[in-house]
Amino acid sequence: MQFTSEQRLDDGVLEREFILGEIPGTLWTPESAAPAPLILMAHNNGLPKREPRLVARARYTAAHGYAVASIDAAGCGDRPRSAADEQARADLRQAMRAGEPVDEIFESLVGPLVDMAVPEWRTTLDALLSLPEVGGPVGYSGWTAVGIRLAVAEPRIAAAGLFAGGYVPRAQREEARQVTVPLLFLLQWDDEGNPRQRALDLFDAFGSKEKTLHANLGGHTGTPWFELEDGCRFLDRHLK
Amino acid sequence: MQFTSEQRLDDGVLEREFILGEIPGTLWTPESAAPAPLILMAHNNGLPKREPRLVARARYTAAHGYAVASIDAAGCGDRPRSAADEQARADLRQAMRAGEPVDEIFESLVGPLVDMAVPEWRTTLDALLSLPEVGGPVGYSGWTAVGIRLAVAEPRIAAAGLFAGGYVPRAQREEARQVTVPLLFLLQWDDEGNPRQRALDLFDAFGSKEKTLHANLGGHTGTPWFELEDGCRFLDRHLK
Repeated sequence: MQFTSEQRLDDGVLEREFILGEIPGTLWTPESAAPAPLILMAHNNGLPKREPRLVARARYTAAHGYAVASIDAAGCGDRPRSAADEQARADLRQAMRAGEPVDEIFESLVGPLVDMAVPEWRTTLDALLSLPEVGGPVGYSGWTAVGIRLAVAEPRIAAAGLFAGGYVPRAQREEARQVTVPLLFLLQWDDEGNPRQRALDLFDAFGSKEKTLHANLGGHTGTPWFELEDGCRFLDRHLK
Repeated sequence: MQFTSEQRLDDGVLEREFILGEIPGTLWTPESAAPAPLILMAHNNGLPKREPRLVARARYTAAHGYAVASIDAAGCGDRPRSAADEQARADLRQAMRAGEPVDEIFESLVGPLVDMAVPEWRTTLDALLSLPEVGGPVGYSGWTAVGIRLAVAEPRIAAAGLFAGGYVPRAQREEARQVTVPLLFLLQWDDEGNPRQRALDLFDAFGSKEKTLHANLGGHTGTPWFELEDGCRFLDRHLK
């Protein structure tokens, strides 16, 4: 893991870009001297780690006392896309414009993205935990499908905040029952592209004994700012 | 309004019993000298104001900086019950034991309770706001049906935390669309006696532009303690 740039932000948070093999990432760490518990923060469906809403969440969470990391996993963000990927994305746009069903296209696009992303997140987790400024336990925040797979595959994940935006591939709908860590599940009540009932069914399916659903009025990107505070308090309850 | 007893609690909260005409009530006020914003706290379906879960919520909320009041409205708590009331309660118990539908019995029991309770809550509100230690704005917490009617009828209510436990009478299901104040709506996902879909439909129906649903795993009385903190933060956002 090599750091390629660093920047000290106004609130004392240190923001560093890193590269780990082929994986580009960003690590935000708080000012405190003690090792900070780590949050893996992933954006839905391959959106880039530099996306402003993700960056704002990461900085806030770091200022709250966490080491926060995000990566562009294979096929995500600015990483090269396969021809199959490009085709699926074009098909998806066309189907959505035409108001046609998108389930199968979505499956062919996001299923492989999740399969490729999770091993890279685990590699990143290994590398991050070797840094002196990063400690356990580990939390997860963001992209639901990757969060499900990681929570099932990775015993170091102790709690997960999931964003119900984005269809969840079939494999992760099945795996949801195997998730047992405490969950905070965010749902936007009027999310244009994501059927509400499917999100409620997914919440119902999780195997976790402690799971909380927060639903707010509004569309996909309308999550209110206070959910950021609530999310940090959820992490505090389980990681601090 | 006459105070009939008072007790200073460990955390500095002053707990006073009062009587206002025929209405017995309890007022909890924080230690601070400044007038505190007022929370009206009602327990579902006529449970008494001395019920330990309500008292615990009231004390916590007062220690957080609010004046909190609860009353036993007509037909509620230790107040005399009408013969019709007693009959409906007996019918309800019998129908639940027999696994028969309870909607109509519930309607005949809770509909009139709400109709009688709301004017008494408004009378109490007038009296409380005349006390120097109680200020506006006013929030509401608890019994959903009374909260709906109060939020519609009473312009001084600025925010409401509602507990989805308890069927809501037909009249309040209709009135929900007229509610416009910010809402925090609590739902127990596995509430034995309260159909989940009905609660979700009610959340959907509210006319408020800012409404948040918190759902937690577990039965009717299993609301986790952290919802008490979340509830206070919700009130803080709108009343402080």
